[in-house]
Amino acid sequence: MESNTASSDEQRYQVRKLEITDKNKGFMELLQQLTVCDPVTDEEFQERFEELKSYGDDHVICVIEDMNLSKIVATGSVFVEKKFIRNCGKVGHIEDVVVDSSARGMQLGKKVAGFLADHARLTGCYKVILDCSDDNKAFYEKCGFKQKEIQMVKYFI
Amino acid sequence: MESNTASSDEQRYQVRKLEITDKNKGFMELLQQLTVCDPVTDEEFQERFEELKSYGDDHVICVIEDMNLSKIVATGSVFVEKKFIRNCGKVGHIEDVVVDSSARGMQLGKKVAGFLADHARLTGCYKVILDCSDDNKAFYEKCGFKQKEIQMVKYFI
Repeated sequence: MESNTASSDEQRYQVRKLEITDKNKGFMELLQQLTVCDPVTDEEFQERFEELKSYGDDHVICVIEDMNLSKIVATGSVFVEKKFIRNCGKVGHIEDVVVDSSARGMQLGKKVAGFLADHARLTGCYKVILDCSDDNKAFYEKCGFKQKEIQMVKYFI
Repeated sequence: MESNTASSDEQRYQVRKLEITDKNKGFMELLQQLTVCDPVTDEEFQERFEELKSYGDDHVICVIEDMNLSKIVATGSVFVEKKFIRNCGKVGHIEDVVVDSSARGMQLGKKVAGFLADHARLTGCYKVILDCSDDNKAFYEKCGFKQKEIQMVKYFI
């Protein structure tokens, strides 16, 4: 009964935009699996949440909630950069994609990347880009991305 | 008289933020040396210029004007992305760096990259990143950058 499993998975793992209450559903702990992410206070979280929300469609954070556990198990963000090139074109930048270590192998990362790429396309971006490690290249190829350039970085702290 | 040359170069090549009148100083033609950049109307330019200006320090375009020719000969942009990771940290993204083909070899690209990286640092970013071709890797290494990841892209048009 594969179709029932798929349907029950869809009910269990709900894809949506970040809500302010997601701080209590493990959103920050999930980000800790990605990189350095110290705890922040409720006030700091709210301030950043509202700042990002004020950008409207120009900055969107996608989450997947495991409804059985009331826990955020995948996330990623996209922001829309406005340019002069390409007829005053727009580019989507995908950042901070991570799937909870306990929820891998269920295509949740692909769903997040698809949600973010769709958002970029629907807001009129001519392309969407992201930086990733060599290890994640094959994953993003399955999501329809191709390698183009290299990423350079300069740290201040 | 090397110091006089340096000083006269500094007077000739002025580094500053983009102004709306730069459309008449070859700013769009300079971007055409970077990528596809069809001409835009004055109204389209003004609209995008004001939209970007409304972001304040979160989106800055640097230009270098050749004062002898009243011509924009180098440019690059940086925008500040706000995150939840790294204590609600910020990251600068450098984009669209180009130096006029007639003005290369005078460290103008390095000045633009320096201006943009300084801006990111001064607005509190913990790092600044950019994507470039393998051919430009050595240039950005001279500007203090190191290679980190790979860039993936998905085009919509």
